[in-house]
Amino acid sequence: MSMMWTVKVVSLGVVGLSLSVELLGWLLRRLRTGRTLNEVLFFPSEMACVEHIFTPSSPHSCFCSLPHGIETSFSRFLRHILSATSSLDLCVFAFSNMDLSRAVLALQRRGVTIRVLADKDYAGITGSQIGVLRKAGICARCNVGSVYMHHKFALVDGRLLITGSLNWTLTAVQSNMENVIVTDEPDLVQPFIKEFHRLWMHNDPARFFHSSDQKAAHTTTRTLD
Amino acid sequence: MSMMWTVKVVSLGVVGLSLSVELLGWLLRRLRTGRTLNEVLFFPSEMACVEHIFTPSSPHSCFCSLPHGIETSFSRFLRHILSATSSLDLCVFAFSNMDLSRAVLALQRRGVTIRVLADKDYAGITGSQIGVLRKAGICARCNVGSVYMHHKFALVDGRLLITGSLNWTLTAVQSNMENVIVTDEPDLVQPFIKEFHRLWMHNDPARFFHSSDQKAAHTTTRTLD
Repeated sequence: MSMMWTVKVVSLGVVGLSLSVELLGWLLRRLRTGRTLNEVLFFPSEMACVEHIFTPSSPHSCFCSLPHGIETSFSRFLRHILSATSSLDLCVFAFSNMDLSRAVLALQRRGVTIRVLADKDYAGITGSQIGVLRKAGICARCNVGSVYMHHKFALVDGRLLITGSLNWTLTAVQSNMENVIVTDEPDLVQPFIKEFHRLWMHNDPARFFHSSDQKAAHTTTRTLD
Repeated sequence: MSMMWTVKVVSLGVVGLSLSVELLGWLLRRLRTGRTLNEVLFFPSEMACVEHIFTPSSPHSCFCSLPHGIETSFSRFLRHILSATSSLDLCVFAFSNMDLSRAVLALQRRGVTIRVLADKDYAGITGSQIGVLRKAGICARCNVGSVYMHHKFALVDGRLLITGSLNWTLTAVQSNMENVIVTDEPDLVQPFIKEFHRLWMHNDPARFFHSSDQKAAHTTTRTLD
């Protein structure tokens, strides 16, 4: 009798263990699938109309000559940018793409907090959208010093990282061989959040005004000595 | 007695279940930690001697004026490249960094299969290392057409992806604000492997020689008609 019970206990234990392993594996897979997004986009993108992404309420309102209703690398890219609901932190070398500029302005109108860090040399050239964004009231800072701000990344709601070789220009999107990674993997997102914060602080114009004020005051004091 | 046995069975089941959940969780954490590498490197890198990375057997052999024994973004980057044991697939816009060229040549000497895809305009400029690699017998292809091959990624042993904004130049490493992601996440690595293969095939010079031969033959035939 005791032997039979032992067998029963062991059998039940094995069944319980197997079931729990299955259940836990399934739960972990579900959790993991739900949690991690890892997407790679390659360019040049097919050319297609993106009007329906800006006006989802009237998806058939555009009659331009471009193909309609096609999902492309660029439309995916645009959708990820437009998925922002609270913040968009953008750190770009070159920003002249009008659709991307329109997307950033649309986010601003929705109340999304936007911060833009751009390369100071490129920000000043014809076609750059940095001036357009600033005129619309978006806070944009340029790097200090003679080196290039060569990043091309965006942080959406502090949870999604969009980064790669792609500058935010029409040529990059439509002509060049480029890549973009879209991920919410914390090990990748967090360092970029930290670096954006560091660069944002480092390139705060107030620091320099303050420094030059102090320097001027110091010089004045010395002159008066 | 039967009641007591039931209690015992249930208790044992609960204990077994708890233990198995703990064990499985620990195993999965171990497996996950062991499996996935996600590292982000930011540039400009601190300047430091990297001689010990090339000559690990005599780490104190260099007496140059640069700081020694410091781990920097660039030394991490270099170590990842040099970790290749079977293959290195490289797709770069600009490649003029002498240390990285030395690393690729060192890998070739170790028998690592190397394929380089480079931008044809940049490959021809002074300082580009593409010619140096070719002279050493490394297979390097340039893109066809007028667009930029603007990628900056490397695939190590078909398992590790190294990609970002960083061109393989001295300025990018020592001066610019840049980023590099190092990952073995299959969802990110696999698309890059596929894209490299596509670009490698697309830019095979034999395709064009063959096409022009066929065209020449066709023209000759037509002339002879």
